[in-house]
Amino acid sequence: MTRNGDSNDMPEITILGIVGSIRDDSYNLALMDEAKKLMPAGAHIETFDRLDEIPPFDEDLEEQGYPEPVRALNDAIASADALLVVTPEYNYSMPGVLKNALDWASRPGGQSPLEGKPTGLMGASQGMGGTARAQLALRDVFVYTKTPVLPGPEVLVANAAEQFDEAGQLKSDETKKFVGDLLERLVEAAREAA
Amino acid sequence: MTRNGDSNDMPEITILGIVGSIRDDSYNLALMDEAKKLMPAGAHIETFDRLDEIPPFDEDLEEQGYPEPVRALNDAIASADALLVVTPEYNYSMPGVLKNALDWASRPGGQSPLEGKPTGLMGASQGMGGTARAQLALRDVFVYTKTPVLPGPEVLVANAAEQFDEAGQLKSDETKKFVGDLLERLVEAAREAA
Repeated sequence: MTRNGDSNDMPEITILGIVGSIRDDSYNLALMDEAKKLMPAGAHIETFDRLDEIPPFDEDLEEQGYPEPVRALNDAIASADALLVVTPEYNYSMPGVLKNALDWASRPGGQSPLEGKPTGLMGASQGMGGTARAQLALRDVFVYTKTPVLPGPEVLVANAAEQFDEAGQLKSDETKKFVGDLLERLVEAAREAA
Repeated sequence: MTRNGDSNDMPEITILGIVGSIRDDSYNLALMDEAKKLMPAGAHIETFDRLDEIPPFDEDLEEQGYPEPVRALNDAIASADALLVVTPEYNYSMPGVLKNALDWASRPGGQSPLEGKPTGLMGASQGMGGTARAQLALRDVFVYTKTPVLPGPEVLVANAAEQFDEAGQLKSDETKKFVGDLLERLVEAAREAA
């Protein structure tokens, strides 16, 4: 599309947010909430909050038809302009729950809604790594699905217990700037892909 | 323990087999069945067949107590002398279903039954890679859990449709030899760790 510098003329961008943890009091959920506040004008985040309903991926089940939560996930990805995955790191990798959802979303082969979808990654962890390994592992998966993941900025929120205040808000302006930069680039990539 | 060369004096070794795919007609299930036949004397494989019953890992659920299938998994790992993971590759990584089971088995931190458990990896795929990337991804996870994974032989059964006959048996003596070599080394590692 042509950009003319007037944001009012540009169509609203919808980013689908997926949080890799399903616990209620998750730092990554708090980070997603921060991202919603830091979104550039003309774009907003809608989250898919039903990862816990996605059944274990099973080709036998797939042959019987996609379960409803899987159809909802695939539809949400397909209709979004971009993806934002905000995930904890479990055992030096992504949560199995998140990978299971991506296994479903990668199907059927050749028709996955993940193909070509601009994607950004963020994560918060209580340790020092800030989910760096989980994000690298996710990048491998997204190579297979032909999903263009933004190279950066890497948003790695380490020592999460110290990074968020009691209201679940990010304390550091520098961290907020990283989040905001990633979101700007993601919206830009979504506009270019649209 | 002291080895005196007389296998009758050595305690029977139990290897817990976990298949990463939950479909019924899986090449990896067939590969596990072949492994059972190729086991050295004095050792046998028992499989954990309930991956589809393991709920999505959730710290909120964990705080309420481990669900029964998770306790069964952790008990099976704890009471086995070694692990054998036979898994397909999904999207350049391990299946989410398998990772989710490992996320539970990695808990509680510091008391995981995976710590110190000798482990072997095998996999079959219909493509050319033979699950090489899934196995590398698993090795990363097992670094975190302090699980000693055998460095080799790498058992990568590529082009699986051609590797198994109609009865689901491996056709190639060379592939069987790789499987047998891995099992021998795994039993040896289990005896050393016992």
